[in-house]
Order: sequence, then structure tokens, then C-alpha cells
Amino acid sequence: MPDTPTPAPLQPPPVIALLSRAVDLAFLVPAFEAACPGVQLRLGSDLGALDDIEAAACWQPAPGVLATLPRLRLVQSLAAGIDHLSSDPTLPRGVPLCRIVDPEMASGMAAYVVWAVVHQQRHLGQLLRQAGQQLWKTQPVQPTGHHRVGIAGLGTLGVACARALQALGYSVRGWRRSAPAAGEALPDDVALFHGDDQRAGFLAGCDTLVNLLPLTDATRGLLDAALFAQLPRGAHLVNVGRGEHLVEADLLTALASGQLGAATLDTFAQEPLPAGHPFWTHPQITVTPHIATRTHPAVMVRQTLDNLAAVRAGQRPAAAVDLARGY
Amino acid sequence: MPDTPTPAPLQPPPVIALLSRAVDLAFLVPAFEAACPGVQLRLGSDLGALDDIEAAACWQPAPGVLATLPRLRLVQSLAAGIDHLSSDPTLPRGVPLCRIVDPEMASGMAAYVVWAVVHQQRHLGQLLRQAGQQLWKTQPVQPTGHHRVGIAGLGTLGVACARALQALGYSVRGWRRSAPAAGEALPDDVALFHGDDQRAGFLAGCDTLVNLLPLTDATRGLLDAALFAQLPRGAHLVNVGRGEHLVEADLLTALASGQLGAATLDTFAQEPLPAGHPFWTHPQITVTPHIATRTHPAVMVRQTLDNLAAVRAGQRPAAAVDLARGY
Repeated sequence: MPDTPTPAPLQPPPVIALLSRAVDLAFLVPAFEAACPGVQLRLGSDLGALDDIEAAACWQPAPGVLATLPRLRLVQSLAAGIDHLSSDPTLPRGVPLCRIVDPEMASGMAAYVVWAVVHQQRHLGQLLRQAGQQLWKTQPVQPTGHHRVGIAGLGTLGVACARALQALGYSVRGWRRSAPAAGEALPDDVALFHGDDQRAGFLAGCDTLVNLLPLTDATRGLLDAALFAQLPRGAHLVNVGRGEHLVEADLLTALASGQLGAATLDTFAQEPLPAGHPFWTHPQITVTPHIATRTHPAVMVRQTLDNLAAVRAGQRPAAAVDLARGY
Repeated sequence: MPDTPTPAPLQPPPVIALLSRAVDLAFLVPAFEAACPGVQLRLGSDLGALDDIEAAACWQPAPGVLATLPRLRLVQSLAAGIDHLSSDPTLPRGVPLCRIVDPEMASGMAAYVVWAVVHQQRHLGQLLRQAGQQLWKTQPVQPTGHHRVGIAGLGTLGVACARALQALGYSVRGWRRSAPAAGEALPDDVALFHGDDQRAGFLAGCDTLVNLLPLTDATRGLLDAALFAQLPRGAHLVNVGRGEHLVEADLLTALASGQLGAATLDTFAQEPLPAGHPFWTHPQITVTPHIATRTHPAVMVRQTLDNLAAVRAGQRPAAAVDLARGY
């Protein structure tokens, strides 16, 4: 946030726990120390004294750990989503829970999605594997204009992806639950499908399907054999929604039969993806470790500190989540 | 070309040689046979009778081979460039030489360049190598808006790349020889640098430098230690121009010193890149086998057949090259 004046550091400096069972959050330490001199950070398996921890910055923390912090005043999700926190039945309900609000998330998501679409459409994974064997071997490629990309979930992130793919000449279509509102701005030339009635028509024209839907009871397990059968034969899948959208066994079956040609997966029902999981070594599956959207460490740190400052001032932080609504 | 009526097949069906020492041109066989029933195709090391070969479709043919075809009436480059043919001193000068004219080439180039920029900026090569070891390990990433991409060579292909990178939120600048003409349409928000005087200022703001310059005596060896020293420390390079733009030893030195952070190379002074070349196995270099722009096989085949039909009708094909001018 280069245009905002730097706020005064919190006094007294807080004690903040950095909690994740999936990611080493040590990368946040320099940004916290730069933004808040004197901050005490606790991370790893030994958190030290629990009763002086004032805030917890979290990405998939171990279930139950937040309930062990008696003086906790802020639970800060390090992501836009909070399902990794609200799924913990012991989450302390009386403590404000904030999410990251990051306008740069859309461009980061679009960069990842474009990378994944091109990587698959242009067979770049295979070319890189061949390069590893010092093999110079090309193959024919469809022009981008002949390749149809469908985006399921046409919110802010989906629209950013659609615009970027259009700039490359891909033929882009989108699907979402609701019809466009009067006067709603959607990218030109994106064919918009909506609702259950138009889903099959949407899927029939997806040479690549990008899943950006939110995870709800209606979308859990959506990416299954029945859906794959509605795609053109040999279609590619990019899953940047949630791991729980995907029926893993059905993906393996569809790849084996040729109904799907390739899949790039950034999210998984179990993260980190366990060693030995068949996705890691499958030649048609590209695995990335949940990095499609990343928020800059300085943004995560700034929002955590600002939210804590609001709590100390007796205010409700702007990014606090209504747990009843879920977002 | 779905909107054009299919022309009548050539009668009598021609004998066409498919010549390359770099690429297996067998991928063109189905498209030729579909477009021209009865066509005889010759490829590989044994071309059979040489005196019935009427046309040669070429990508980096062995020097001298075209001069062995006594009744050749058309030399068809399978690319937009013809430097792979005009460099052969025995090229039969009296035979029309045609290049591929493919409007879809710009979107193909833009897709490759965006892929390469994101692949390097988001450390995806390293993430894929870690995935190969079943390692789930993320790292912090700069937002696209903080990463400056400079495009050297702002012609049709460069402008397409600039627009696509802007759609992802990258900060884009371009450099070329000449100042913009009055009323010339360039993308908004692309900072345009031109001429020798503005080259250093351009380079100083390139976190990624994309080389799209044509190969001329003035640009041969341009990507050397002196140029790398003008880039920000740790900059990334994408070379989609020609291999002869790059001083290979200087690239290795700049990567070893940290002056450059990564390079993606699609073109090489010697193609195929020979086995054992240090680029193949260098952890900071991504090698692709000259695939940044690809023309669809059906387009190559259609243009070859149309050009041959023009020659048979006693006309000069529209895509014929003026060898004195060079393009």
C-alpha cells in the first residue's frame, strides 16, 4: 500500500501467533518485524506462554489450537476464505475473525489460470519433461482462437481470468448460478450461461474447464464423472476452487479413459497433498501447492496489525466476517 | 480458414517433399492428405525419385538439398521467417520462395510469452520440480503489478504480448528503433522507449526482458554481458527472437553471478539444441524447442497448396518473398 501513510506501530508491541499445519509461515517474520518493531512472534510446535498471545494469524491451523489461547482478541485468516477456520468446531466464537481483502488477488489468480490454460493447451508440461531428457521434439498445437475456455464461477476473480484469456485470443465462456443483473458489466464476447438449465450447454463447449466456484453444499463434489462426461472428449481441467469440489477417483478414471486429457490442480481435499498420493506422479496431472492466488506478505501483515489496532480501540474491524452468513 | 470455400484439389495431385533436419514433419501428412487427395509426400532421408518433386515445404532443411531437385517450382517456408532458407548459398534463386502469412501467430506468441513471464515470476518451474519430488513447499510471490515487463521489439507480435500482459496487471514497457508515427495506435499505459538514447532507461526498468527483435546485423549478439548489466539485478530473460541475439557464455556468467535470475529460451543458434549443451540441464534456464509461435498444420498445408496452384497458373504467389529485401 505505497500510497497510504505508514500508521504508528502498535504500542505496546503485541504477541502474535503464526499458526499453520500446512505451510511454514516463517516467511511472514521479516514483514511483521519491519512493520511492527518489538513484535513477538510465536510459531512452530512450541508456542511458549499461551496467555500472552493477543492475535493469531492463521492458514489452516491445527483444529483446537485457537481454543487454547485464553486471551486471544483477533483471529486473522491469511486468505480471502475462512472455511479453513470455520470448519473447526472449537473456534472461539466470541473473538473477531477477519479475512484478507486484497484487490491484487484477482490479477494473481488470472496470472495462474492463464499459465495453467496455456501450459496444458500448448503441451508445455510434456515439452519440459522432454527437455529434462535433452529431447528436442515439437508437436502440433491448436491456435488459441480454436480453444474454448469455460470459467465456472464468474465473480471478480472469474471476470479477471476471462478478460486475460480473451486478450490471448481464447474463446471464453462463463457459467454461474444467477442471471446478469440489469446494467451489470461483464466482459464483451464472454458467452454467459447461468443456472442449472444452461449448465450442460456451457460444459459442452469447454475445451478447458476452469473451476472458480465457491465451496458450498451445492458445489461439493461437483467435479465428478457425470460432469466430466458432459465435456468434450479430451478436455482439460483447472481446479482453483477447493479440493472438495473434486471427486478424486472420478478424475483418475476420466484421465485413464481419455474423457479428460489433462488436469492442473492447485487445491486439494487434504493439504499438503500427502506423499504417495497418486496425483503427484500422474503424467497428466500438474500439482501446485495452493499458490494460485497469493497475497503479498506485507499486505497480510498490514491488515493483521490494522485489525488488531481496531480491536484495541474497541471497534469492529472492517474485514470481520459474519460467521452466520459465512463470508 | 472456416469461412473460405474449399478450393478444388490440385489436378494432377502434386509430389511434395517435406524437408527438415530439425523437426519430424510427419505431423503434416494427415493435413496434406485431407486437403489434397492423391498427393504424394516424400520425407525422411530417402526422397525417392528427385525429378518428380514439384514443391518443397521446409523448416530448416539440410543445406544443399533444395538444389538437388531439378523440377522444383515452389519453395515453401513453414514459418513466417525465411532466414532458415536464405542462409543456404545453394538455394535455387529462380524458384518462388513463399513464407507463411498467419494472423493467428500473434496470439500464439502472446500465449507463450505470458506463460514464460508467469512461469518465471511465480517460480512455477521450481514448484513443478518440487512436485516431482512430492514436496509441498510454497514461497512468497510479488504481485503482478509490482513486476515490470519490458518488450524489446514492439511490432505486431510485441503489441499483442503487451496487451495480454497488461490484462494480467503487469507493468509493461516497450522499446523499439523508431519513434511512434503520428496517430499510431499503441496500447494505453505501455511506456514506449525508442532508439539508442532511451535503451538504458528502458532496460533499467525490466524485471523481465522479452526479446522479440528481428535478427539483423545491428541486433546480432545484443543480449550480452553489457546489456545484462543494465537490467535490475536478478532480472528474468525471455528470448523469443533468434538464438543469434544471445551471447550464450554471457548468459551463463550472468546467471552464475545473480545478475540474471532466470531465462526462458525458445530459439537457439544451433537447432535442435545439441544433447550435452549446458542450457538443457541448467536449473535457472527453461528450454522449449522453438514453439513460441506455431502455425496450425491446416494453415501451412492450405497456403502451400494455394501457392503451388498460383505457380501452376503462371502467377506470382502473394506470399512470395523478395530475396533482395529479405522479407
